[in-house]
Amino acid sequence: MSADAARPGPGRCVIFTARCQGDPAAAYDDPREDDLILCADGGYTIAHRAGAAPAAVIGDFDSAPPPGEGTVIRHPVVKNDTDTMLCVKYAWERGRRSFLIIGGLGGRLDHTLANLQTLLYIAERGGRAVLSDGRTRLQMLKNQTVTLPRTEGKLSVFAFGGRCEGVSVRGTKYEVEDIALTPDFPLGMGNDFAAGHAEISVRRGALLVVCELEKE
Amino acid sequence: MSADAARPGPGRCVIFTARCQGDPAAAYDDPREDDLILCADGGYTIAHRAGAAPAAVIGDFDSAPPPGEGTVIRHPVVKNDTDTMLCVKYAWERGRRSFLIIGGLGGRLDHTLANLQTLLYIAERGGRAVLSDGRTRLQMLKNQTVTLPRTEGKLSVFAFGGRCEGVSVRGTKYEVEDIALTPDFPLGMGNDFAAGHAEISVRRGALLVVCELEKE
Repeated sequence: MSADAARPGPGRCVIFTARCQGDPAAAYDDPREDDLILCADGGYTIAHRAGAAPAAVIGDFDSAPPPGEGTVIRHPVVKNDTDTMLCVKYAWERGRRSFLIIGGLGGRLDHTLANLQTLLYIAERGGRAVLSDGRTRLQMLKNQTVTLPRTEGKLSVFAFGGRCEGVSVRGTKYEVEDIALTPDFPLGMGNDFAAGHAEISVRRGALLVVCELEKE
Repeated sequence: MSADAARPGPGRCVIFTARCQGDPAAAYDDPREDDLILCADGGYTIAHRAGAAPAAVIGDFDSAPPPGEGTVIRHPVVKNDTDTMLCVKYAWERGRRSFLIIGGLGGRLDHTLANLQTLLYIAERGGRAVLSDGRTRLQMLKNQTVTLPRTEGKLSVFAFGGRCEGVSVRGTKYEVEDIALTPDFPLGMGNDFAAGHAEISVRRGALLVVCELEKE
């Protein structure tokens, strides 16, 4: 299965969210006609940088004013969902199961962690959960196999949210076959691509794949 | 129990590691005579900025040369442990159970995640696991209660590595009592201190507390 083969539902949801360290246009390098484009709060400035026109901008707008045009869905500041989670739920209710979140790394750690947990939220429910800020690309795998194209940067895998069984990593400098990973030991950190692509799989559990797009 | 009341073992281990966004001297603002000071690889430059003299510098020195003076413990580049984990194990074998890691945030996400998993490694084994870079302070709680002094920044809690039961957060704008948290929903994100201190507890599971020291 290639990285892009899994396209369940009626098309992808692309969510632009705040704090994009790299180039958002590089993160959104394969626009598709049926993409549902949403922005989480101030993420619309990131969408603008990527030349993407959002179907809706969703948030509480506690730190940035809403955009002057387009559809704005305003939520109260006091709520259980982050603005990015609001976008995920909005798209999920409309049948979208494949998600590309753009941005969301490199600012406050709590924002980053909330975005990682949002990837798990999607993966736990059978959706495809990818996040990229044009510098780092993440994918949350749940009982799944994925093939990633080679980059010059580091490739790491982490047990996320619990123990992982049956983890295999192939096409890399350090290969492993059918091992267990636990969230209290970063054994899968700092690998390198050795071939044109890497194949990563996890038989049981949620595995976070962290791929640096360029060499540090 | 205050944040600093739990001092098991013969004293603390302070580990300086690379990538300190804030002021390392602010992160190491209460030096104690019996601190075992270690540096993970290039972290000795951070120790130097904090005015701390390491007992040993431990690492593979694949990206930075070892310091010209003091005790250097060199490991091969190909190994299962990160340099920070090597420091933790070195100190653990010498009886240290309370850890303050300084730095380790804000660079590559895989480094940050490896450091969070290292905090869980310590907490799972009954140790005290704190990380600070002078801007953000983390503590991994395992079946534990902690009291944190007020800061002007955000206070967040995340289920880390599995489900948390019996989570209570008091002395904050949004208080919760005896709830469950899961790693796939960032319910505990973005709280504010309301009193002079906050009390956070988790009855079962590992809870990552993320405290921003200053308002963003």
